[in-house]
Amino acid sequence: MIQQSHHKNTPIIVLMTDFGEDDFFVGSIKGVILKINPRVKIVDLTHRIPSFNIRAADFILSACYRYYPSKTIFVVVVDPGVGSSRKILLVKTKDYYFIAPDNGVLTSVLEVNPPQEIIALTNSKYFLSKITSTFHGRDIISPVAGWLSKGIPLQEFGSKVSDYLKLDIHLPKIMNGKEIECEVVYIDKFGNLITNISQKMIAKDLDLIKSQKISLWIKNKEITTSFRKSYFQGKKDEVFLIYGSLGYLEIVLNQASAAERLNISMGEKFRIRIY
Amino acid sequence: MIQQSHHKNTPIIVLMTDFGEDDFFVGSIKGVILKINPRVKIVDLTHRIPSFNIRAADFILSACYRYYPSKTIFVVVVDPGVGSSRKILLVKTKDYYFIAPDNGVLTSVLEVNPPQEIIALTNSKYFLSKITSTFHGRDIISPVAGWLSKGIPLQEFGSKVSDYLKLDIHLPKIMNGKEIECEVVYIDKFGNLITNISQKMIAKDLDLIKSQKISLWIKNKEITTSFRKSYFQGKKDEVFLIYGSLGYLEIVLNQASAAERLNISMGEKFRIRIY
Amino acid sequence: MIQQSHHKNTPIIVLMTDFGEDDFFVGSIKGVILKINPRVKIVDLTHRIPSFNIRAADFILSACYRYYPSKTIFVVVVDPGVGSSRKILLVKTKDYYFIAPDNGVLTSVLEVNPPQEIIALTNSKYFLSKITSTFHGRDIISPVAGWLSKGIPLQEFGSKVSDYLKLDIHLPKIMNGKEIECEVVYIDKFGNLITNISQKMIAKDLDLIKSQKISLWIKNKEITTSFRKSYFQGKKDEVFLIYGSLGYLEIVLNQASAAERLNISMGEKFRIRIY
Repeated sequence: MIQQSHHKNTPIIVLMTDFGEDDFFVGSIKGVILKINPRVKIVDLTHRIPSFNIRAADFILSACYRYYPSKTIFVVVVDPGVGSSRKILLVKTKDYYFIAPDNGVLTSVLEVNPPQEIIALTNSKYFLSKITSTFHGRDIISPVAGWLSKGIPLQEFGSKVSDYLKLDIHLPKIMNGKEIECEVVYIDKFGNLITNISQKMIAKDLDLIKSQKISLWIKNKEITTSFRKSYFQGKKDEVFLIYGSLGYLEIVLNQASAAERLNISMGEKFRIRIY
Repeated sequence: MIQQSHHKNTPIIVLMTDFGEDDFFVGSIKGVILKINPRVKIVDLTHRIPSFNIRAADFILSACYRYYPSKTIFVVVVDPGVGSSRKILLVKTKDYYFIAPDNGVLTSVLEVNPPQEIIALTNSKYFLSKITSTFHGRDIISPVAGWLSKGIPLQEFGSKVSDYLKLDIHLPKIMNGKEIECEVVYIDKFGNLITNISQKMIAKDLDLIKSQKISLWIKNKEITTSFRKSYFQGKKDEVFLIYGSLGYLEIVLNQASAAERLNISMGEKFRIRIY
Repeated sequence: MIQQSHHKNTPIIVLMTDFGEDDFFVGSIKGVILKINPRVKIVDLTHRIPSFNIRAADFILSACYRYYPSKTIFVVVVDPGVGSSRKILLVKTKDYYFIAPDNGVLTSVLEVNPPQEIIALTNSKYFLSKITSTFHGRDIISPVAGWLSKGIPLQEFGSKVSDYLKLDIHLPKIMNGKEIECEVVYIDKFGNLITNISQKMIAKDLDLIKSQKISLWIKNKEITTSFRKSYFQGKKDEVFLIYGSLGYLEIVLNQASAAERLNISMGEKFRIRIY
């Protein structure tokens, strides 16, 4: 891979929300941003985070952000506490800006990218003139993103705070040398079950690839499985394991949905045992 | 809120259709516009207006347009009469341009923003060279939007007309000092029921906030309810009222769908009574 | 239609995938492209190709591409063979660039636009530094699109190949002067059944418009039907035929779904008989 260029001119604002695409929510947010800074490039990361699902939002953001150019502004509106006293944060890390409700949605990103500065948004000079109690994404978060993209200094938007809410992230537990207690952290649209077991952990602790036999204990049932390098290597109707594109172990089928086959939802706990 | 800048350079075309995102419709429209004016910034407002639902399109457009910079061109393709003799209009208001079939879809927007000029599109010089009878969004509306964004004067696109089709908008009826007959005009993706009762009307006519008891008569059932300032103040499973982000009264639940709970569709009529 | 301008400055990359909008897939791809070339204009053609459906992708792409400005780069990620030894191709035609897995997805486009050059992507200098076995859309295809948009010459990306995989496209069979055996090649979101019978073929071989009676033999049932010029001319509940916006015969209802009414899926074969 050769050295990548940095954008000097066009600021980028990336939107991630649970608003869906049916309504007036996303259309309003884009308008607010463009009215303030018509030069900005708006990117839809996704608007289909499951409603109010902070954990899914945390996961998706942490899967994507690193691919964007430095100085990108990420706007996250998954906000079950809208209208409550929860703060709205503007966080600067080494490479990026994040604007989001202080509800844990930045946990995974900030674990890897320590905040250099955290501002709680309070300066209504940069908000819409009328603030409703139900749509801070439009009234507060978007206009701040717009003004930030025009170069307004961070300190202008509010007061520094020293901490932020963190989700309790479940790490896999190695029960003995042969068994891991773990969790399905995300299910993608193909029905692949993304687990919280990283490739690194497996390399260190559990030799999946060379093992003779692998069992999944999931929903009180044992499934004998094996490890494959790619989807296409799986036989028809076979449940198998791969390292997914995010660096985590996934439970999958070839061109079929593991979530449907095994009837699994996000957050399901299960065990892997090798022999 | 501080003074907002105006865009001098990049024209903005905002798309609102009932085409969905699955098909070739939206992809074709974007291509047509970019081939004529590759400099234009295309914004997806939504492509998920329910098929042929002019009333929903009218509602969504009127909820969003005002957040966009002046000179924005709104392209509306919700067009059950495509291929009939219905006109296609290009409307200039003080701040915006709207291109849409003459089927009532601009009713709410033009009520607030009187048209300064209305052109019926007739000059095929600015259409695609081949006009089909089923996809005027691609063949007529998009190329006109593209050419308009390049500065072609309005009069070039067709002949002036003096009027446009208006939907019959249902205003709430105050039955006596204590009761309003009203309607669910839109249901958002969270299942919130947006009514046609504006905050202004309530402030003037019906003191909801200080009332001891509020009843909804909906689907022949009485629901005792109360008014809250934000979603998060609602108790679990409680149906309550708030002022929504569009300035209208909404019937909602906290993190659950009022539409599902009460089994309500758009257009449902109901009564509010205060005691 | 007047002469259209060519874009000199902003490169355009059009994305078509089966990733849906819910996940991290599309958000990652956009980031990768923008990190390499922040000036590029990214257009979402659709991300809702049915999972792994190469035939649908071929159809949608061929319905849209021609509306885009010359030099547009089309990125197609519908890739059931990801991780296998299938090649990834960069194809230059007279007007466009296409990057896609070599799985037949470019069949219809390249039939009309003969390839001037076909490169199999092999130069990892232009890939992400870490290539996973499950997400070549992000790791290989997107970065190549980004670098191509910056003007890197084609030959840099890999080695020339002389052929590409072609889908077996089913042409309608004229059984005698009065009957055609044909196929539903696509169903749009309105439930219109798009067939493989082109307007040209009908004009030449089968006088549908002047015929006294037209029968469809579909799912072992005969449906007597007729030809109309536009959707709105159909009576309520009437199944009828029109020439659709892509130049193919369609089986439709007025504001209702022919697919639901007749219980038809893509690929369904049927016969048309005129009397």
